[in-house]
Amino acid sequence: MYTALIAYDGTRFFGWQKTESGPSVQEELEKAIFQLTGEAVCPEAASRTDRGVHAEGQVVWFSIEKSFEPSRLLRALNAVLPHDIRVKKLFFGDVEISGKEYHYKICLGDVQLPMKRLYSWHFHHPLDKDKIKEAAKALIGTHDFTALANEPEKNPICTVESIIFDEFFRIRGDRFLYKMVRNLVGTLLYIGCGKLPPDSIPAILASKDRKQAGMTAPAHGLYLHQVFYRIK
Amino acid sequence: MYTALIAYDGTRFFGWQKTESGPSVQEELEKAIFQLTGEAVCPEAASRTDRGVHAEGQVVWFSIEKSFEPSRLLRALNAVLPHDIRVKKLFFGDVEISGKEYHYKICLGDVQLPMKRLYSWHFHHPLDKDKIKEAAKALIGTHDFTALANEPEKNPICTVESIIFDEFFRIRGDRFLYKMVRNLVGTLLYIGCGKLPPDSIPAILASKDRKQAGMTAPAHGLYLHQVFYRIK
Repeated sequence: MYTALIAYDGTRFFGWQKTESGPSVQEELEKAIFQLTGEAVCPEAASRTDRGVHAEGQVVWFSIEKSFEPSRLLRALNAVLPHDIRVKKLFFGDVEISGKEYHYKICLGDVQLPMKRLYSWHFHHPLDKDKIKEAAKALIGTHDFTALANEPEKNPICTVESIIFDEFFRIRGDRFLYKMVRNLVGTLLYIGCGKLPPDSIPAILASKDRKQAGMTAPAHGLYLHQVFYRIK
Repeated sequence: MYTALIAYDGTRFFGWQKTESGPSVQEELEKAIFQLTGEAVCPEAASRTDRGVHAEGQVVWFSIEKSFEPSRLLRALNAVLPHDIRVKKLFFGDVEISGKEYHYKICLGDVQLPMKRLYSWHFHHPLDKDKIKEAAKALIGTHDFTALANEPEKNPICTVESIIFDEFFRIRGDRFLYKMVRNLVGTLLYIGCGKLPPDSIPAILASKDRKQAGMTAPAHGLYLHQVFYRIK
């Protein structure tokens, strides 16, 4: 099994997963591996990032029959992959995922800087950052996060280890439900701009009702920053 | 005369100036003004940025017959301009330009981060930053910069006020010759990676020979960061 650390600009992709709807990262990787080896494989990923979401440290794995020196395979993949996908590291071995860190970038102010428009959410309401930091504390720990998921899930219990908010959000946890990070950011920004009261998090979580939380923050501000793993 | 501070993502533009070859910032601005006022005007800019160059603080000016409250005109322009051009400030008045600050961003390391590929130059040779800082000192001051210009110019004398290099280059001066900033960056990076000796700048300038200097750094790392002006 080869394991690779990859980065991608999610702008033109319909997400990680292969779909009839349009280009996906999985399909591009599949094509690149086929071009190099003639082998049709289906690479798997630690996180199925949604349409438009970026990755700085996605972890993917695939098995091929041919044997490659990992550094040669890394260079060969980067030579055939499109420029909006890059392999940063590659090694031979199997991994076990223990958690993830997502970043969410926002662009404040009346006018959005054009260079940031594809890489951050333009949020033009004034923000009380202290309210956000205070409210974020209630999300830390092990909770039922049904109220922050856009689909019902068998196991809605997740542990959020940390939420740091300075220039942007850094959110670390063991696992995340569908659209949970974007709902969490949307809810905290609603609190920051006064659309929701600062102490509303415990009641939102207890309600298990998605409608109590804030909006789903748009995909283009979200980055899968890091996947935590150990080599098996 | 209205004066506006604008930012643009240069990726898809053939530069500031209107051209038959493809889209330009000047043409987009002209179309936006026409859409709002019905008046055909030709906005002028402090700097004719080249194809692919970005701007965070370009200064442009235009006269229209109709009278607008500046904050209303700013919002109206942003409502009709494409998202890769934004008006950041707008006021009624005429300006006199006294200097400019350019930034040049580079991405070091073996693999370029996909999110930076349109906004920085991927330079994969190891760099000695101290050599660059030392060499940059010889560029500061008033010199004949013919060796760093891609076209002969009537007046090749410019004053470079400062060059700061940490994460990226910040270059401030009174005026710059055609492609001078990109040639200056290319030359300093050649020094930084050992392709040119660290003390070569004085001889390069004295030669007035473009071939003595380093390569022209690509457009997509360059940003017109700020134009210095006073209101007349």
